[in-house]
Amino acid sequence: MTSSFPASNTSMRSERNTYVGKGFVHVKNPYLDSMDEDVLYHLDLGTKTHNLPEMFGDVKFVCVGGSPNRMKAFALFMHKELRLEDSEEDIKDICAGTDRYCMYKIGPVLSISHGMGIPSISIMLHELIKLLYHARCCDVTIIRIGTSGGIGIAPGSVVITDRAVDSFFKPQFEQVILDNVVTRSTELDKELAEELFNCSKEIPDFPTLIGHTMCTYDFYEGQGRLDGALCSFSREKGLDYLKRAYNAGIRNIEMESTVFAAMCRLCGLKDFKRVSTCLYCYFPSCCGLCDTSQQT
Amino acid sequence: MTSSFPASNTSMRSERNTYVGKGFVHVKNPYLDSMDEDVLYHLDLGTKTHNLPEMFGDVKFVCVGGSPNRMKAFALFMHKELRLEDSEEDIKDICAGTDRYCMYKIGPVLSISHGMGIPSISIMLHELIKLLYHARCCDVTIIRIGTSGGIGIAPGSVVITDRAVDSFFKPQFEQVILDNVVTRSTELDKELAEELFNCSKEIPDFPTLIGHTMCTYDFYEGQGRLDGALCSFSREKGLDYLKRAYNAGIRNIEMESTVFAAMCRLCGLKDFKRVSTCLYCYFPSCCGLCDTSQQT
Repeated sequence: MTSSFPASNTSMRSERNTYVGKGFVHVKNPYLDSMDEDVLYHLDLGTKTHNLPEMFGDVKFVCVGGSPNRMKAFALFMHKELRLEDSEEDIKDICAGTDRYCMYKIGPVLSISHGMGIPSISIMLHELIKLLYHARCCDVTIIRIGTSGGIGIAPGSVVITDRAVDSFFKPQFEQVILDNVVTRSTELDKELAEELFNCSKEIPDFPTLIGHTMCTYDFYEGQGRLDGALCSFSREKGLDYLKRAYNAGIRNIEMESTVFAAMCRLCGLKDFKRVSTCLYCYFPSCCGLCDTSQQT
Repeated sequence: MTSSFPASNTSMRSERNTYVGKGFVHVKNPYLDSMDEDVLYHLDLGTKTHNLPEMFGDVKFVCVGGSPNRMKAFALFMHKELRLEDSEEDIKDICAGTDRYCMYKIGPVLSISHGMGIPSISIMLHELIKLLYHARCCDVTIIRIGTSGGIGIAPGSVVITDRAVDSFFKPQFEQVILDNVVTRSTELDKELAEELFNCSKEIPDFPTLIGHTMCTYDFYEGQGRLDGALCSFSREKGLDYLKRAYNAGIRNIEMESTVFAAMCRLCGLKDFKRVSTCLYCYFPSCCGLCDTSQQT
């Protein structure tokens, strides 16, 4: 997000996003190892109350999405796909002690909900990354799967994000640390996006494309919708914004991708990608860029 | 939140926050009345599928909080307090068709969850305000009740917010509309804060104070915590930030108050206040400002 702020409060240094270590998920916090106990408040887990290496040490894939129900459904789907011996009834919410997030483990796959918006997924990511670090997980791939508003694409299309951008079409995430602003990169691995794209070709009737994803802080005024409680722009201005976004290579809009890309990149969650299922174009008045009319 | 952005994208005009109408909740969207149907996506309600005036026309108080379980517990508490004739079993989640938010109605009181962070509560507020508008509700008071991190106060204290401020201690909320930034006021009604404060005096052992509340976009790096996956500042710098916040009149930190204050003020949800229960000081290393050591 953006604003004017005192120059004295500004620190726009970019942080190095180089991959560190031998594939281990790592934290960038010098205080963590000296803590007697690390309580993962919002996951209802902790280093003294749970044996995290035993519980999570074999995790290789983490799939996250906003809705708790959908992430449970995804866990059941993965259980079927992986043909695991244990029963479906054994798949319990590991975070049942809290209603902030839900978490399911299916063999080497974790399925976790993160709620809506950058702050909500950010809290989950801080605690998930610490969880994977304490569990000494190695070579972990994280994928966000979620609905989004499509721009100029057929409803139902899958957008594989190669770059997350902010409301100003910039590939960056601005993190306020105390009262300083730090800019972090939101670039994703294009080779892996291509790999995922090639997989999609094997599935019939599965419209998939690679494109940029725009992440906003607001669902209504921030995404050009005309049906919020507040709307101060004209239909034409909203359409013009979406058309400029399309011309900048943006194919869908959601509310979590920039902080997801920035944090995973910083903490060695390598090979991560973001998959966004465009269930329908949200814009109440069809922007006319897609090849079908709006569907809900 | 803050950042640098192209001057051409900047619009720092302040919006008028004057109270409009005869106590009716109102929207500021010229397109809404011409819509054939208004679907409140995230509440699983709509103007064609539900008789909103019949369902919600008598609402006078709306209480919101982050956790679905807590807002259900609050609904049951209100049912007991109001001594309503209907049975506890009749209190059902009105938004059961979605897992984004939960909503309970107890006589003239609505109890709604909003998840964590500005984007999550913002979506709920857009749809709640439209719901109250379609239901032709009048003279509605909205109160946010939630946990927060206390600064320089006893754990367990209740902070009645007189002013919501951002990470730079400014009493404003910066809304990105398309790629423009609009600054909105986050002042709350001090007379009503006083009224609520006087009520608290009637309850024994109920430590209550009036103060400013700081709203951040991040729980770890944004609030000076040393126990996130990422921490780039020293313990001393974190403590200095909290001490500067205390000296600026801030008594607690949370993640929703600025957009809550700004949106309610714009839409005629009059007499609104925000109550924040400081269950414990979150800062892992006690800032030494409070009169008790850190408790969890």
